[in-house]
Amino acid sequence: MTYREDVEGLDASILMHPRVWEASGHVENFTDPMIDCKQCKSRFRVDTLGEAIAEKKKEKLVEVFEGNLTGENLDKWNTIKEIHDSLEKRFESILESKELSFELLAEVNCPNCGTKGQFTEPRSFNLMFKTFVGPVESSENTVYLRPETAQGIFVNFLNVQGASRQKLPFGIAQIGKAFRNEINTKNFLFRTREFEQMEMQYFVKPIEDKKNYDEWKERRIQWFKDLGMTPEKLRFHDHPADKLAHYAKEATDIEYEFPFGWGEIEGIHNRTDFDLSRHQQYSGKSQQYFDDETKEKFVPFIIETSAGASRSFMAFLVDAYSEEEVNGEQRVVLRFHPRLAPIKVAIFPLVNKDGMPEIARRIEADLRPHMKVFYDNKGAVGRRYRRQDEAGTPFCVTVDTQTLDDNTVTVRERDSMIQERVDIDKLLMFFIQKLK
Amino acid sequence: MTYREDVEGLDASILMHPRVWEASGHVENFTDPMIDCKQCKSRFRVDTLGEAIAEKKKEKLVEVFEGNLTGENLDKWNTIKEIHDSLEKRFESILESKELSFELLAEVNCPNCGTKGQFTEPRSFNLMFKTFVGPVESSENTVYLRPETAQGIFVNFLNVQGASRQKLPFGIAQIGKAFRNEINTKNFLFRTREFEQMEMQYFVKPIEDKKNYDEWKERRIQWFKDLGMTPEKLRFHDHPADKLAHYAKEATDIEYEFPFGWGEIEGIHNRTDFDLSRHQQYSGKSQQYFDDETKEKFVPFIIETSAGASRSFMAFLVDAYSEEEVNGEQRVVLRFHPRLAPIKVAIFPLVNKDGMPEIARRIEADLRPHMKVFYDNKGAVGRRYRRQDEAGTPFCVTVDTQTLDDNTVTVRERDSMIQERVDIDKLLMFFIQKLK
Repeated sequence: MTYREDVEGLDASILMHPRVWEASGHVENFTDPMIDCKQCKSRFRVDTLGEAIAEKKKEKLVEVFEGNLTGENLDKWNTIKEIHDSLEKRFESILESKELSFELLAEVNCPNCGTKGQFTEPRSFNLMFKTFVGPVESSENTVYLRPETAQGIFVNFLNVQGASRQKLPFGIAQIGKAFRNEINTKNFLFRTREFEQMEMQYFVKPIEDKKNYDEWKERRIQWFKDLGMTPEKLRFHDHPADKLAHYAKEATDIEYEFPFGWGEIEGIHNRTDFDLSRHQQYSGKSQQYFDDETKEKFVPFIIETSAGASRSFMAFLVDAYSEEEVNGEQRVVLRFHPRLAPIKVAIFPLVNKDGMPEIARRIEADLRPHMKVFYDNKGAVGRRYRRQDEAGTPFCVTVDTQTLDDNTVTVRERDSMIQERVDIDKLLMFFIQKLK
Repeated sequence: MTYREDVEGLDASILMHPRVWEASGHVENFTDPMIDCKQCKSRFRVDTLGEAIAEKKKEKLVEVFEGNLTGENLDKWNTIKEIHDSLEKRFESILESKELSFELLAEVNCPNCGTKGQFTEPRSFNLMFKTFVGPVESSENTVYLRPETAQGIFVNFLNVQGASRQKLPFGIAQIGKAFRNEINTKNFLFRTREFEQMEMQYFVKPIEDKKNYDEWKERRIQWFKDLGMTPEKLRFHDHPADKLAHYAKEATDIEYEFPFGWGEIEGIHNRTDFDLSRHQQYSGKSQQYFDDETKEKFVPFIIETSAGASRSFMAFLVDAYSEEEVNGEQRVVLRFHPRLAPIKVAIFPLVNKDGMPEIARRIEADLRPHMKVFYDNKGAVGRRYRRQDEAGTPFCVTVDTQTLDDNTVTVRERDSMIQERVDIDKLLMFFIQKLK
């Protein structure tokens, strides 16, 4: 944000007017189908149950299949294979379409009480968390916790544009919490009900959508690389035309190879004029942009870069973690890019005497207003280095005997472990340039 | 946070385990009494209704009172005054205690439908927003949106202490959203349902509570002053002993004089060991701190500094706004402290030729990684200054004809309007020092 003059920041609210989520399509479409067991009243997400059912059916099929192989019914091979294939196909379609074949459901037991085939028809379950404004818990008082930060940007588009005097193309970005009532959370920070997003919506002329989409795609994957992420662990997953979301003309995921497999950390989407047109329709307020030069009015297209801050954090963390051998000892290092390191500089007096602590404290006081620093005077310097390596601190400053002679200190870089001497008076600028 | 090595940052979650809010006392105590009109089913907060009723009663009383003054019942003066006094007293107690006298309620009309005295008994309405995890909207799946960020700090106390190797006294701070289902929002950002808090919990030895409470009280009011807030518009409101919250041994508000009156922008509280003891009790996990030196284990006391970021923002904004006359023209200035200004430096080429835009763009590129800058080449320089004055930008840099000769630029300070020449090569450090 700081780096681009064509992108403005925003902090929109988490609880917005419920009509926003009707306009966005979330009330209607942001759903999973659910069924209840009529016997025990337990509720299941259909695709979860579908998976469980499929597993069970497959097991049974294998039993039958194997029994038949060794028995006298070897001549039924073809029939069984046909049954197997046909069922497999049906399982696939269940898993993919999230729809259940009722004839199949009638044959299976409730995962909770075991009752056979007593399920209600599937009903839609909305993934938005809902709550109520005011003391009455009624539908007219229902509001939603935002499931994405993007809509807060769309509804503030003309607000921000007017205040900032930006012209197309320009962007609005924000970082903030979003909430999804996921039935199954998994993989640590990868899927959680409360998570942090960092989204940017770039407003462009309709005819310039492709160009901007392509540019942002490249810029965004480059952003992860520039912050030190291993290039081989990053890839695009372009969405095929028949799998695009209802709002998208083109879409791609940036995926990172986590220890548990490839996972999406950011999506780049050409959302066309879908969002602003919908908000125009539902609010009754024009969302058109007036082009000074051509004197035309139109609804801009939106190129979206939607990153998961929590997921990206985890990706940066696992990517930075490394173990190596140094002089026969294991060294654990978090190789964070200096901009991402939680502590930027650690400051050590070599010994706790001869005026060294006082000098070290003065350096600390000098740097602290500008960056996060950490003062440590405990244990051997080697051990102090190792502690900072594990925390990912890119630079350590040591005040030693030479400091007393020439006003210089040792600056040790985390990854290379190279040490250089820097004049104390030049330290602040030295680090400011390293950290920019 | 950056300035103190004894305060750690945290970003706790908004949706926490519901037991947290039982331990904190919010499920039980964070309530307002509500009544329903039996006729029209409208619901009212008792104190709001009490105020409305009190107003109505007073009006009526004045009517009766005045009618009697001019009529033949002048001898009833004493009686009326007695009635007046007695009712006044009862209104006060209603307003203060939030309890309603039912004999009074029976006499008044519903503010919605006008039906007289048909109200239910008061019931508690919890101010926490609630939602449901998972598809079933039942009490066992109820979770709350945090009504304060403090509890996220309490439950993470030993976590943070262990990871940061901090010793008492030390603090944990966070900035984040909190939510309260207020029936009546008011005064712009002053009371909203969704708001931003910035809280710090300082963990101390029990015997050092008073000392730390007093120190933080002074530090916090000084913080507002250091950031430029008018000292005369700041005051403490100490809570008298009989009005303290259930968790507090001592408490004070820092109040700011808004255009609509004095309002709390921060509270400083000695919370004793109430919070950690309650979490210890409800979680069954020890929240004791082990003191290395004395080899003692104990539950620390907590001194809390709880500021409203949204409210403080509004206070800084109204405090910074000023209008003055300069050379016979009105000048609007936001006198933000440089640390609070959204744009730190504006950069202008005097004219759009002679290489000035190129130099200005180079300065922009040099400063942008370190601070929020704004490039403007439109209109007379005087007008550009005024625009930045209104936005609160503390410094404007102008590239002019002298720049072409000696590589210096004009730096103009917002409040004094004093201009000085600074060497381009020294600009970055010049501003870094001004902004620290």
